[in-house]
Amino acid sequence: MWPQRVSILGVGLLGGSIGLAAKKHISGCHVIGYGHRESALDSAAGMGAIDKWELDAAKSVAGADLVVLCTPVGLFESLLGQIGPVLEKEAIVTDVGSTKRSVVRLAKKHLPRPERFVGSHPIAGSEKRGVGHARADLYQNARCIITPAPDTDAKALEQVEGFWKTLGMRTTRMSPDEHDRLLSDISHLPHAVAAALVAIQTDKALSVCGKGFLDTTRIAGGDGALWRDIFLDNRDNLAGGLRRLRDELDRLAAELDNQEADKLRTWLDAAAGRRLAAEPRSHPQQNP
Amino acid sequence: MWPQRVSILGVGLLGGSIGLAAKKHISGCHVIGYGHRESALDSAAGMGAIDKWELDAAKSVAGADLVVLCTPVGLFESLLGQIGPVLEKEAIVTDVGSTKRSVVRLAKKHLPRPERFVGSHPIAGSEKRGVGHARADLYQNARCIITPAPDTDAKALEQVEGFWKTLGMRTTRMSPDEHDRLLSDISHLPHAVAAALVAIQTDKALSVCGKGFLDTTRIAGGDGALWRDIFLDNRDNLAGGLRRLRDELDRLAAELDNQEADKLRTWLDAAAGRRLAAEPRSHPQQNP
Repeated sequence: MWPQRVSILGVGLLGGSIGLAAKKHISGCHVIGYGHRESALDSAAGMGAIDKWELDAAKSVAGADLVVLCTPVGLFESLLGQIGPVLEKEAIVTDVGSTKRSVVRLAKKHLPRPERFVGSHPIAGSEKRGVGHARADLYQNARCIITPAPDTDAKALEQVEGFWKTLGMRTTRMSPDEHDRLLSDISHLPHAVAAALVAIQTDKALSVCGKGFLDTTRIAGGDGALWRDIFLDNRDNLAGGLRRLRDELDRLAAELDNQEADKLRTWLDAAAGRRLAAEPRSHPQQNP
Repeated sequence: MWPQRVSILGVGLLGGSIGLAAKKHISGCHVIGYGHRESALDSAAGMGAIDKWELDAAKSVAGADLVVLCTPVGLFESLLGQIGPVLEKEAIVTDVGSTKRSVVRLAKKHLPRPERFVGSHPIAGSEKRGVGHARADLYQNARCIITPAPDTDAKALEQVEGFWKTLGMRTTRMSPDEHDRLLSDISHLPHAVAAALVAIQTDKALSVCGKGFLDTTRIAGGDGALWRDIFLDNRDNLAGGLRRLRDELDRLAAELDNQEADKLRTWLDAAAGRRLAAEPRSHPQQNP
């Protein structure tokens, strides 16, 4: 089974879960972890997510069939620069980043065979961080978006798709441009709005909030540096989404001023219907 | 123990759960339910949430020590008009509505002894509806806001507070004005935003959304008619909140345009810190 040797660059929740799942589902698979904190790498090895680790990214990809970038997207350029010169000729590189245009551009710039880079975005994870939360079933039944560029090698694309399927995922292909637009609306914009909803509250209001508010703003508890990188990387789409949402809120405020009961009811019913229809039925473990 | 005879007007999730909890915690308590659907009332009786039921609101409050309005707020005026003339002299009336200024005004208008009306808002429930979801522990450890008016009878206030405490709630007093401002920010505004986040999505985006989006928009699955009533009743506060949030989103979009990395990080970190601090620790069953 392919791959027999996987290098995971960044062994946190996502990277650690890939290691656990690869070792569970791929017979004989050897996993090397790269990171900058020995204690985290020791934990990852202790829980069986990786077989060995390196503190040097270039060393960690020696002999790798598949390299998976699992750090925050802000570190991708540095990592690709380090591994580009030493990758095996047949190695395929993929990633788990939340934005895709920039990593495809960086792969073109830094990798000797950019056609063997295949962007991936497994829609899984949580606001929790660190390999301590990693699970072999994190990706089970969740969706993975694969974002081939026009020059992506067809065989490499199939192999990366097969890898995520082996880990239990359902895959969907789209262009990096479409991915970034879509993820802005479905993930980055909700994150921004959740943070804004927290930002405008008084401490007293937060002290009496209930489960509804806590659910609505749960994602705002995510790591600030990580989300800053995502926001900046996808800033054109996100700023556009914020302005579309702003217009929707303005329209709603005007309907309230004018007491337009029927319009409000129609709008609320439509949102309720679409939200309930989006609830996963057969895939209860689907994740962010 | 007081009350020995409780009338619950509207036996859905909230009313049914009050019946179950009252019968569990108050020895000898007799519960009468009022509603307009016999099948729902039969279900409520079958699961032990009420002892008997009436399809006539006036009949349902005969002999009641405590009357609890549990219908959508849009029906409160009609109900208060029906029960006002027939209430027992010592009866206390309360409610579970999500807005408080209007019900206090209606009590003044329709009840012969408005000083014996004590507004309540138990911050509990879910987007699920109907007595079938009622539970005796729905109110356990959750917060109940009590909104006395200047002329509220002090003894009646204490009795209503004691009732919610008997059901396991932690009570907080504030004025109807303060309640409606605060709940607009912490509940009605998040609901509006969740619905707007769904409204602006394409069907394709909804088809690939993950747990983060689903959590953020969960409350948008709530009943449209119920929320329209709440929105209209609290429209001044909600329209103000929508405009404050709109300004926050505009500011954020401008920071993205200008790539203000440090400001974004500071803002995201502050929101993450406040959101994580709001997470209930000792009260895991707190509800919306």
